[in-house]
Amino acid sequence: MSVTAARGFRACGIAAGIKESGGADLALVVNDGPSLAAAGVFTTNRVKAAPVLWSEQVLKGGQVSAVVLNSGGANACTGPRGFQDTHATAERAAALLGHSAGEVAVCSTGLIGVPLPMDRLLAGLDAAVADLSEHGGEKAALAIMTTDTVAKTAVAAGDGWTVGGMAKGAGMLAPGLATMLVVLTTDAVADPETLDLALRSATRTTFDRIDSDGCMSTNDTVLLLASGASGVTPDAGAFAEAVRAVCADLAHQLIGDAEGASKDIRIEVVNAASEDDAVEVGRSVARNNLLKCAVHGEDPNWGRVLSAIGTTSATFDPDQLSVAINGVWVCKGGSVGEDRELVDMRFREVRITADLAAGSESAVIWTNDLTADYVHENSAYSS
Amino acid sequence: MSVTAARGFRACGIAAGIKESGGADLALVVNDGPSLAAAGVFTTNRVKAAPVLWSEQVLKGGQVSAVVLNSGGANACTGPRGFQDTHATAERAAALLGHSAGEVAVCSTGLIGVPLPMDRLLAGLDAAVADLSEHGGEKAALAIMTTDTVAKTAVAAGDGWTVGGMAKGAGMLAPGLATMLVVLTTDAVADPETLDLALRSATRTTFDRIDSDGCMSTNDTVLLLASGASGVTPDAGAFAEAVRAVCADLAHQLIGDAEGASKDIRIEVVNAASEDDAVEVGRSVARNNLLKCAVHGEDPNWGRVLSAIGTTSATFDPDQLSVAINGVWVCKGGSVGEDRELVDMRFREVRITADLAAGSESAVIWTNDLTADYVHENSAYSS
Repeated sequence: MSVTAARGFRACGIAAGIKESGGADLALVVNDGPSLAAAGVFTTNRVKAAPVLWSEQVLKGGQVSAVVLNSGGANACTGPRGFQDTHATAERAAALLGHSAGEVAVCSTGLIGVPLPMDRLLAGLDAAVADLSEHGGEKAALAIMTTDTVAKTAVAAGDGWTVGGMAKGAGMLAPGLATMLVVLTTDAVADPETLDLALRSATRTTFDRIDSDGCMSTNDTVLLLASGASGVTPDAGAFAEAVRAVCADLAHQLIGDAEGASKDIRIEVVNAASEDDAVEVGRSVARNNLLKCAVHGEDPNWGRVLSAIGTTSATFDPDQLSVAINGVWVCKGGSVGEDRELVDMRFREVRITADLAAGSESAVIWTNDLTADYVHENSAYSS
Repeated sequence: MSVTAARGFRACGIAAGIKESGGADLALVVNDGPSLAAAGVFTTNRVKAAPVLWSEQVLKGGQVSAVVLNSGGANACTGPRGFQDTHATAERAAALLGHSAGEVAVCSTGLIGVPLPMDRLLAGLDAAVADLSEHGGEKAALAIMTTDTVAKTAVAAGDGWTVGGMAKGAGMLAPGLATMLVVLTTDAVADPETLDLALRSATRTTFDRIDSDGCMSTNDTVLLLASGASGVTPDAGAFAEAVRAVCADLAHQLIGDAEGASKDIRIEVVNAASEDDAVEVGRSVARNNLLKCAVHGEDPNWGRVLSAIGTTSATFDPDQLSVAINGVWVCKGGSVGEDRELVDMRFREVRITADLAAGSESAVIWTNDLTADYVHENSAYSS
C-alpha cells in the first residue's frame, strides 16, 4: 500500500536522529520511471517554509524523481539558512541517486522556527538510500508522523494501474490548501498537465474541505508522482476519480486522528445559492469554538450554528434557515424546530446539516470537536 | 457608579424567575430626563435576536426613556413569537412608567433558541419598576450577568458631567460590533447625533477590538443614554474621550473575565500599511487556537504567530516580519531572533507585538488563552 502500491516506486523510512524521541523521522520516495511526471499543490499561507518554496520551483518543471520528507522540524521561518538547508538536502539526495537536484522535492514538518540538524539529516540520507525498497511505503508513512497517532495510507486500483498514497497531519489543519504532507504515486501513464488537473480537482473537494482547528500551516504539500510503469494510459475521468478517492480517504483519516478530538463533525450545507456560499458557511460553522465545545459535550446547541452562519456573507434569509443535527431538524425557519431531546450524539460521527433555502448548491466540510485534550496537546509542549 | 453614576437615571435589578438558578435576571434603566437623547450600536451578525431588531428600530428615533434587560434567555432564533415577546416587554414597561413603547429599548442575553417565560418576565417588570432607585446601578449590573463571574461597571467624570456604564459578557465575544450588552448613561447635554458619533468612535477601538473566542453573538447591544440633567453641554472632544475611556475600561473587564481564561493577551500590530491591515492581522493572531493554547502553556511559540499572519491579506514581506513576546524579539526578519528562553510568561497579561515593517499604522486587539476550563464551561451545559 502507501506510496509503493503503484509500480515503479521505492521508498523507505528511517530514524535519522532529527526527532529528540529517536523515532523514525526521514522518508524517501523514489520514482524509477520510466516517466517522472508530477504535479503539486502547496499551502496558500503567505509565510511558506523553505521546503515549500523549493518544491514549488521543482514542480514548475513537471518532473519529480524523488521526494525527501522529514518530521522533527518544519524548517519554516528559518531565513536564508533554512533555504540553503533544503537545497543541500535535495543536492545530497540527487547525488546519491544519480538524479538532478532540480527534480528532487523536499517536505518538512514539525516545529516552526528551529533550524534542522543538517549533519544528522544528510547522514540519514545515506542510510535512507541504502534502505530503499519496493515494499518501503509503510515505513515511509511512519517516518512522516508528528503528533499523528497512526500512519495514514490509501490506495485505489484502476484498470491495470494503481494510485496509492500516504499522509501526515493532526494539528494545524485548515484548508489552505493542503494542510499536511501528502505524497501520492501512480504507475499510470500521465503527463504533468493531466496530473495537475486531477490533483487540483481532488484536493479542492477533499483536503481543502477539512478544517480541524482553523489554523493554516506553513508547510502544506500534496504531491502526485507518475512512474508510467504500468504502461497504461487511463481514461482521464477514471484516473481523476481514483486520485479523488485516495485523497478523500486520506483526508478522512486526517480528521479521524486530529489532535485531542473525540468527535468527527460532518457539516453539510445544502440549498445554497452557490458552492462558494456553501463552503463559506461550512467553514464558519467548522471554526466556531463554542459549537465545537457543544458537540464535545453532546449538546445539540443549534443556536451556535445559526450564530456562525450569521457571520458570513452568503445569501440567506435568517427566517428561512434550518438546521438538523444527526437527522433531527432542531431548527426550522430560523426558529425552534423538533425537540432537541430527540438528538442522539453518543457516536463519534456527528452530522450537522444547514439548509440555507437559497438555491441548490451544497458542500461538505469536516471538522472535529474542541476538547481539553486538544488544549493539553497544544499547550504542554512546543509543536 | 454603573448606570446611575450620572444624574437623571434610576435603575434596578431583580430576580424575576427567568434563570433557573433563581438569581437576579431582570434589570431596568430609566432616563428621567430632561433629555431622552440616545444612540446605539448593534451586532453585525445577520442572525439578530428579536430584542436587537426591536431596539434598532427604537434607536432610529434617537430617544430612549428606558432600557429593559434580561439574562436567562437570548430571545434569539425564536421567530415571530420572539418578536412579539420583545414588543410586549416594551409595552408593559412603557405602561408602568407612563412612557411610549417606541422609546423603550430591550436587551436579552442567554441561551439562543429558547422562548422567554413571559409570564415571569412581565410580572417581574412590575416588581422592577417598584424597585427603581438612583442608587440601583450596581444591582442592574448584577442582574445582566450570565457566565460572568463579576459585575462590570465603569465611570468617567467630566467637568460638571459624568459618563457611567455597565456591561455583561464572558463568552461569544468577538467584534461584530459590540459582542455584549452594554448600557452607558450620561447627564451631559448632547443630541442624538453627538452621542452616535462619540459611541461609534469609542466602540470601534474598544469593544470592536476584543476577541475572546472568535464567536460573534446574535444579541450584541451597546446603548448610550443622555439625560441632560447636569445642564452642561460638554466639549465634543472631551465627551468623546470620556465615552471612549468608559468603553475601554469595560472592554478590559470583559476580557479579564472571559470564560475559562487564565491569560489576557494584548496583540499589538505595528508598522502596518494601514489600520485595517493592523486590525486584520491582530484578529487573525487572536483567533489562532494553537497560539492561544501555547500562551496557556506559557510557550513563546512565535511560529504560530507567523503562520497566523500568513493567512491574512495585509501588506507585508514574510522575510521582514518580526515578533516580540513580552518584549523579547523572538522572531526577527522572518526568522529566529532573540533566545526564546528569555521570555517570561508567568504573569496573567501577555504582550505580543507583531511588526509588519510595511508602514506606520498600528492597532491593538485583546484576546485570551484557550484553556481546558473554556472547553468545560462550553461543553458541560448549554449556554
